[in-house]
Amino acid sequence: MKVIVIGATGTIGRAIVQAISNRHEVIPVSHSKSAIKVDIADKASITKMFGTTGRVDAVICAAGLAKFGPMTSLSDEDFALGLNSKLMGQVNLVRSGTEYINDNGSITLTSGILSRRPMKGSSAISLVNSALEGFGRAAALEMPRGVRINIVSPNWVVDTLKAFNMDPSIGTPVEVVAQAYVRALEGTMNGEVLDTIK
Amino acid sequence: MKVIVIGATGTIGRAIVQAISNRHEVIPVSHSKSAIKVDIADKASITKMFGTTGRVDAVICAAGLAKFGPMTSLSDEDFALGLNSKLMGQVNLVRSGTEYINDNGSITLTSGILSRRPMKGSSAISLVNSALEGFGRAAALEMPRGVRINIVSPNWVVDTLKAFNMDPSIGTPVEVVAQAYVRALEGTMNGEVLDTIK
Repeated sequence: MKVIVIGATGTIGRAIVQAISNRHEVIPVSHSKSAIKVDIADKASITKMFGTTGRVDAVICAAGLAKFGPMTSLSDEDFALGLNSKLMGQVNLVRSGTEYINDNGSITLTSGILSRRPMKGSSAISLVNSALEGFGRAAALEMPRGVRINIVSPNWVVDTLKAFNMDPSIGTPVEVVAQAYVRALEGTMNGEVLDTIK
Repeated sequence: MKVIVIGATGTIGRAIVQAISNRHEVIPVSHSKSAIKVDIADKASITKMFGTTGRVDAVICAAGLAKFGPMTSLSDEDFALGLNSKLMGQVNLVRSGTEYINDNGSITLTSGILSRRPMKGSSAISLVNSALEGFGRAAALEMPRGVRINIVSPNWVVDTLKAFNMDPSIGTPVEVVAQAYVRALEGTMNGEVLDTIK
């Protein structure tokens, strides 16, 4: 399959590319570091990306920004960042991108564990992650031509926890997280939220 | 308790007012039909409302707009309506309103069944309702002075189904829906999503 991986240079994106490139044609896309670039917060940039790649069998997105911080210190702009980037950026990938996906292809988006297991400081991120899961369940009912949509909700990645000086024992190795995207890509599920807790 | 009910003239709001006004002091607020008005999509309007009401023990919100319709026909503006009104309108009630709520008071917001039981046409609403549930779970961890936040996720109301020429047998009487708000107001739960399926 011809598969666009957005966020291909990030922690999770790199692991996805590594997990699938031996048997699929991967088109790596990122905000600034790949030959093909996209700013998912900008609908015109999404359309331009698909104009460059042409039709594909699948899109995997492991990109999007949202702000972590105490609710009282989060500004309107901090909430707007999550809504415009991680949330509507990925929603707009579906809205603008479905026509570029071949019959029986798939779109896989990324939410995150904070949707269901919040922590202090996660209000804006929990909002966005839950929104993506609700959107994915609903959008799946309307996808045309057998195109599937699923949401991977990654647990904390071990390396991320180490980088934040948090307890790495609650995390999941990034190779395990990547396998959820492989299941969404190669499986038959539609409208599911794929957990990666392990 | 002194309780602001926002959306007091709507189907659910009227039932909430009826359910609690025999034992609490209700301040009814609505977009246009009450003595005190608020446009929750406008942060300045929220602040003005609290300036008028002064401190209260609880805020219940059963207001907010979001657009139903096939995903391919929903415009950017349709998605923005749900984000600005039902979602961030209610989130901003918490962000701006918590300081006006007395110790051990509560805020109760409204999501809806489409968060977990989507249907064709619900992508923008499912997104918003799920976002509210994720936000509520996370915000609960940071509320000060014993103030609680909960989300009521109403099932379809029987009268609404009748108005839409849908099967009313899957619905819940509005008086039963209102009891979920009473439980959130008078109970001790925090960060919960109160289902009203019956």
